[in-house]
Amino acid sequence: MAVNYTPESEIVPIQGIRLATQAAGIRYKEREDLLVVEIAEGSTVAAVLTQNRFCAAPVLLCREFLAKTTPRYLVVNSGNANAGTGAQGLSNARQVCQELAQLAGVETEQVLPFSTGVIGEQLPVEPFSKVLPVALEQLSETHWSDAASAIMTTDTVPKACSRQLEIAGKTVTVTGIAKGSGMIEPNMATMLAYVATDAEVETELLQAMLKQSADLSFNSITVDGDTSTNDALVLMATGTSGAKVDETNRAALQAVLDEVCRYLAQAVIRDAEGATKFVTLAVDTAPDLQTAREIAFTVARSPLVKTALFASDPNWGRLLAAIGRSPVKSLDISKLSLQLGDTPLIEAGEPVASYTEEKGQQEMQQEEITIRISLNEGDAAATVWTSDLSHDYVTINAEYRS
Amino acid sequence: MAVNYTPESEIVPIQGIRLATQAAGIRYKEREDLLVVEIAEGSTVAAVLTQNRFCAAPVLLCREFLAKTTPRYLVVNSGNANAGTGAQGLSNARQVCQELAQLAGVETEQVLPFSTGVIGEQLPVEPFSKVLPVALEQLSETHWSDAASAIMTTDTVPKACSRQLEIAGKTVTVTGIAKGSGMIEPNMATMLAYVATDAEVETELLQAMLKQSADLSFNSITVDGDTSTNDALVLMATGTSGAKVDETNRAALQAVLDEVCRYLAQAVIRDAEGATKFVTLAVDTAPDLQTAREIAFTVARSPLVKTALFASDPNWGRLLAAIGRSPVKSLDISKLSLQLGDTPLIEAGEPVASYTEEKGQQEMQQEEITIRISLNEGDAAATVWTSDLSHDYVTINAEYRS
Repeated sequence: MAVNYTPESEIVPIQGIRLATQAAGIRYKEREDLLVVEIAEGSTVAAVLTQNRFCAAPVLLCREFLAKTTPRYLVVNSGNANAGTGAQGLSNARQVCQELAQLAGVETEQVLPFSTGVIGEQLPVEPFSKVLPVALEQLSETHWSDAASAIMTTDTVPKACSRQLEIAGKTVTVTGIAKGSGMIEPNMATMLAYVATDAEVETELLQAMLKQSADLSFNSITVDGDTSTNDALVLMATGTSGAKVDETNRAALQAVLDEVCRYLAQAVIRDAEGATKFVTLAVDTAPDLQTAREIAFTVARSPLVKTALFASDPNWGRLLAAIGRSPVKSLDISKLSLQLGDTPLIEAGEPVASYTEEKGQQEMQQEEITIRISLNEGDAAATVWTSDLSHDYVTINAEYRS
Repeated sequence: MAVNYTPESEIVPIQGIRLATQAAGIRYKEREDLLVVEIAEGSTVAAVLTQNRFCAAPVLLCREFLAKTTPRYLVVNSGNANAGTGAQGLSNARQVCQELAQLAGVETEQVLPFSTGVIGEQLPVEPFSKVLPVALEQLSETHWSDAASAIMTTDTVPKACSRQLEIAGKTVTVTGIAKGSGMIEPNMATMLAYVATDAEVETELLQAMLKQSADLSFNSITVDGDTSTNDALVLMATGTSGAKVDETNRAALQAVLDEVCRYLAQAVIRDAEGATKFVTLAVDTAPDLQTAREIAFTVARSPLVKTALFASDPNWGRLLAAIGRSPVKSLDISKLSLQLGDTPLIEAGEPVASYTEEKGQQEMQQEEITIRISLNEGDAAATVWTSDLSHDYVTINAEYRS
């Protein structure tokens, strides 16, 4: 179902990261819905969490715990988001962490909880109590693919990716998994991603590198504009490769980390709810980055643009209208150029005479479509990826809970 | 098809406003698609136009002409928006105004052009040339209902409304018509509304009154968040009732004008593309008006909230998630209360214990649903009206041009 997406066959383990999955039966039956990740002592961890103010109980605990100590375990469940659950939800999440901590012999604050699934239902603790002991026994470095499957909700494919590079003669690996069938389905609440590397990176730099990668990947995708209450992206660095990364040699690892995050973020869009198209919005020659991003996101979120994409209808008036209503400080439409795939539509604000409906139609029929918007007002650029708005999107979201 | 909407049977004419409709065949066949409105000499006129930067050629001319003189004629066509048409589009719109001006013996700048329909196709002038002379012969004060029909695009019902009041012993009438099946469908480009009164009001005050009414009506509705390139709202005051309105006695007329505009704006939502629900977002006790409006609009635009409304699914997690991601300066969720119809969901940030899925279901099954969000942080309030996101919305917008 996912647009042009075949899961990668080889996911390379990271020494120092062990994983285990279990069927806890929290909501889904007959499938694994619980993931435990163990991070070797001495590793560093960075995280980026949802900005939604109604963030879920596990997100609140992640913030609290990350400020205190370095995590040793992650515990992730699918099927229930533990969001909108008030004080009881916080207490339940804390209890899960406490139980895992006691079993593993670490502090409660060293266990980070993550949940994804339906909002507004209390998360039961018993299913965790039942399977956590077994999970700890089954921890293994080779379980990345199972982990990618266990965290899925309405995803149709598991999403995982590995890349390698050389740093000072040592082979360094970056491996990551993600779930999400849209940047946001608060009901399913939503995007979770875990990336690990065996490079050695100080926490502060690791956080900076993760922030950069996130902005260029997960923070550059949208399905429906709805920010989840549970989004989380975690980067773990075990240092087990023996390759040390600091500010002076950051670039190579940053590039690979960017690539892994972009791959996973694009996989989320390819598997977006009801998606039939993979769409790239490329804004260039903008006066500043924010303007470029605002315009790209305004077009990417437009229901009218997205239904036209679904219909393969080269209805470029909808592109103009969305660009024109973007909440940017200034926009000189007499300089603007617009291109659909290889076909120019607008040049310097005027319709291109050579454009024909047939050319537009041909571009729109592709499964992968790039819309290029050149403002000719500066040198900033931004790329955003999105999906179309199909009947299946309505069906999935109108029927998800029933 | 429109939700709880039956067109009003009696539309009261305004002395000094004459209307005529014609089938010009600009895009639609076998239906009237052209409206000419004549405004008696000595009337005042106010207008509110789209803020979309890619605004249509007729909108650019309206701005130019309104700055120079008081209009005597409006010429409106449906089927073609004359937007995204560059210099040629401006020239065509100007020629239409020129032809009507010559026939009527006024200046070109005294004719305001309006277009609604497909974006990106050149507006042919010949269909106007053919029917304008006949239209001028047929001008009559009684043609308001025909006018409401002639400006429709994907609307399923014509929208018109009359209200009367007494000012200093004189009967004053406010009559208006509107089209639009969403606040925005740039392809159809979109919302047009014409309101007239026989009160006597100076232009400056008339503009201020229109601005207030617009903010509380047309600027408080959304179907899909897409701002049209052609939105226009025009208010004409002929003074023929003999009732003079100034700052000192503005309130009564303002209240009726607010009511007429709200009625027409709500009619647009009731007739929103694919709508099965009429939804009111009421935000109160907000720290300021902007915060109240931002939150109401963020929820009203959310595809996930709108698909839940379509499914009559009391999936209130989606409401929380949308509120939580609203782009407001601060939001203290521990004070927030949320109510669906008469059923409380959240109080002081915590789930309400007495809530049951059955109660929520009962509220969501109504055709008219009010969602009340109390921030308990101040005394500002805002109300926004919206529709749900149904399969028909996707069908209409995926197939409109084919």
